[in-house]
Amino acid sequence: MSLIVQKYGGTSVGNPERIKNVARRVAEWHRKGDRLVVVVSAMSGVTDSLIKLAKEIMAEPTERELDMLLATGEQTTTALTAMALQAAGIPAISLTGAQAGIVTEGIHTKARIANITPKRVREYLNQGKVVIVAGFQGQNEEGSITTLGRGASDLTAIAMAAALKADLCQIYTDVDGVYTADPRIVTDARKIEEISYDEMLEMASLGSKVMQARSVEVAKKFKVIFEVRSSFNENPGTICKEETKNMEHVVVRGVSLEKNQAKITVVGVPDQPGVAAKIFTTLAEAQVNIDMIVQNVSEQGTTDITFTLNKDDLARARRAMDPVVKAVGARELRSQDGISKLSVVGIGMRSHSGVAAKLFQALSDARINIQMISTSEIKISVTVEEANGPDAARVVHQAFGLEK
Amino acid sequence: MSLIVQKYGGTSVGNPERIKNVARRVAEWHRKGDRLVVVVSAMSGVTDSLIKLAKEIMAEPTERELDMLLATGEQTTTALTAMALQAAGIPAISLTGAQAGIVTEGIHTKARIANITPKRVREYLNQGKVVIVAGFQGQNEEGSITTLGRGASDLTAIAMAAALKADLCQIYTDVDGVYTADPRIVTDARKIEEISYDEMLEMASLGSKVMQARSVEVAKKFKVIFEVRSSFNENPGTICKEETKNMEHVVVRGVSLEKNQAKITVVGVPDQPGVAAKIFTTLAEAQVNIDMIVQNVSEQGTTDITFTLNKDDLARARRAMDPVVKAVGARELRSQDGISKLSVVGIGMRSHSGVAAKLFQALSDARINIQMISTSEIKISVTVEEANGPDAARVVHQAFGLEK
Repeated sequence: MSLIVQKYGGTSVGNPERIKNVARRVAEWHRKGDRLVVVVSAMSGVTDSLIKLAKEIMAEPTERELDMLLATGEQTTTALTAMALQAAGIPAISLTGAQAGIVTEGIHTKARIANITPKRVREYLNQGKVVIVAGFQGQNEEGSITTLGRGASDLTAIAMAAALKADLCQIYTDVDGVYTADPRIVTDARKIEEISYDEMLEMASLGSKVMQARSVEVAKKFKVIFEVRSSFNENPGTICKEETKNMEHVVVRGVSLEKNQAKITVVGVPDQPGVAAKIFTTLAEAQVNIDMIVQNVSEQGTTDITFTLNKDDLARARRAMDPVVKAVGARELRSQDGISKLSVVGIGMRSHSGVAAKLFQALSDARINIQMISTSEIKISVTVEEANGPDAARVVHQAFGLEK
Repeated sequence: MSLIVQKYGGTSVGNPERIKNVARRVAEWHRKGDRLVVVVSAMSGVTDSLIKLAKEIMAEPTERELDMLLATGEQTTTALTAMALQAAGIPAISLTGAQAGIVTEGIHTKARIANITPKRVREYLNQGKVVIVAGFQGQNEEGSITTLGRGASDLTAIAMAAALKADLCQIYTDVDGVYTADPRIVTDARKIEEISYDEMLEMASLGSKVMQARSVEVAKKFKVIFEVRSSFNENPGTICKEETKNMEHVVVRGVSLEKNQAKITVVGVPDQPGVAAKIFTTLAEAQVNIDMIVQNVSEQGTTDITFTLNKDDLARARRAMDPVVKAVGARELRSQDGISKLSVVGIGMRSHSGVAAKLFQALSDARINIQMISTSEIKISVTVEEANGPDAARVVHQAFGLEK
């Protein structure tokens, strides 16, 4: 008899039929004798509709009130899910984030979980009930409803599993698990059975957006073993846990491709302290999210700084940068969109050399030009022309033998 | 500088434009220097949609979960109303019923307000904020969300006004106030300026469903003066308060007509103790709401009992009654639908005789047959053929000079 925390995302609870389907799945686990806490998201589309409604009232809705509004989305799903279980003969009870004892700190719409006191969750579990908890939300010290940011129902599940010392946390979603590459691009991509937190983090922060990086970080911190799996079939998913010796035998765990990228190069930047800080402070103030940053060694007192960003932010970034280029005495600003970022991720890289060489060779053999290169301890990323992205993913996937 | 509790019903906050309109009205009061608590209902149609959604999951939704679900309706409106005020430059904050300190007792979906501890409401008022409170809801001792039954946002407003010792409670709705008769039927019906709690109660329990009787009872108990007025114009409404000597000069305050009634007569009931109890216990168990009950003096050991009910309940009531008629040894069951109930209400009746005579004479002059008669201290009701209802209302309205 295990204590399991399950999380079902917006697509899995997207309409009454799907909610009943979730109830059937939960009922099966319950009948096996497991104790269950089920975290649910808002039905897909609901959060966006609520934001749209808010914007009809106020162009930039205030954050406390937006939280008050958005929290109704998950509350609705909890009640419906509890009803669906009860209709199936399973005792169940719904709780808001606040009722489940989730206390947050920090600002509205992006609150952090400060602590969880799952007193009521435990009481209801002890009464033999399946406890349905609203994801994505909590309440702050003042007693106001807060939300944790987009995709944070995963975080609720992971944190609740940590607080309850659950045996397992299952993240049910609309994909089967984490794959060695996007199966729509690389047809022989394989589902990964086990992945380490660090690999998952790198995959999460890349194109493979199965899960939010923040949720993986919390799982890592509290050593919560979780499984990413589909709510639409019975296939086992991908288990994410602390790395084991065994995991290192695999040099590259997966290949990730991120489209819709752009890059900006500041050419002829005077090579002196404070210039980079000035550039990136300006971008942060303009709320431009920067991904890769590359600066090569300087020659003759000037250097070039290149960074990548989402192409939707390109115009805003250029506007923000124009005065800075003059102010720091750089020569010019060049930008390009239509690029993709390809990364290989694997903790095995730490103990295996030659990964970069093999990556570059594979791309070279396919006559794909590499624009930028950036590396971390367990990841190597390159940017390529967007048109070359899918081919690049396929040849790299094959070069590392990931289809086997 | 007054402390005012305002309540806006579902129609008044039915869409974003209307919510902005409410905000404009509230803003005006705020600028005059008044301190404001604004109780809002769910946007019109929302509660019904949620019930429909619940029924897609579970034919008879469990009450605790239904409360969890329905409470999102008012929570949504509070957030949107607070945003609309903020957009108009007025500091505002929203609170759920639970956050506003509304503690309930009794069963889910029909909870009663046990007490209100409006600590946070007071704090925010002291900060100069307009406080938006979700109507219709609270939380019970266990910390679960409860709702107070249909139309109970009025109750929230009245109870909040009592707890805060507010100077005035305004119930904004889609009608101008309480009229001497339904203006759609009696074209020269007048708006009543002042009405006593008891008269309002009788009007509320009849066809003039401006407000729920329960809310009026609470207002009476705590001596909360309230005004019923329109959120769509600036007209003063009807003030409801304790009766004054002055009020008694008006013998009849208004005429009320209730359509869609039916009556059942149990003929030849043995005149012995316990029979009436058996009949009405059976009906209560079948969840049939009974209105008038008339039993005349008995002759020869048997009597007839007639009662009225909503015509939608007639078939169910007959099914429930059939075995009882045999069990108590009554002769037969007769029923008729297509009847209306006409009532005249006024605290002046207590000190004026001849009201019944004038009522019967007016109907007689118009050749309208009276079926049943029932009286209370401040009300006389008769039933007539539904086809005669509108004419009956007009002649009675005129007979008592209510158009003046």
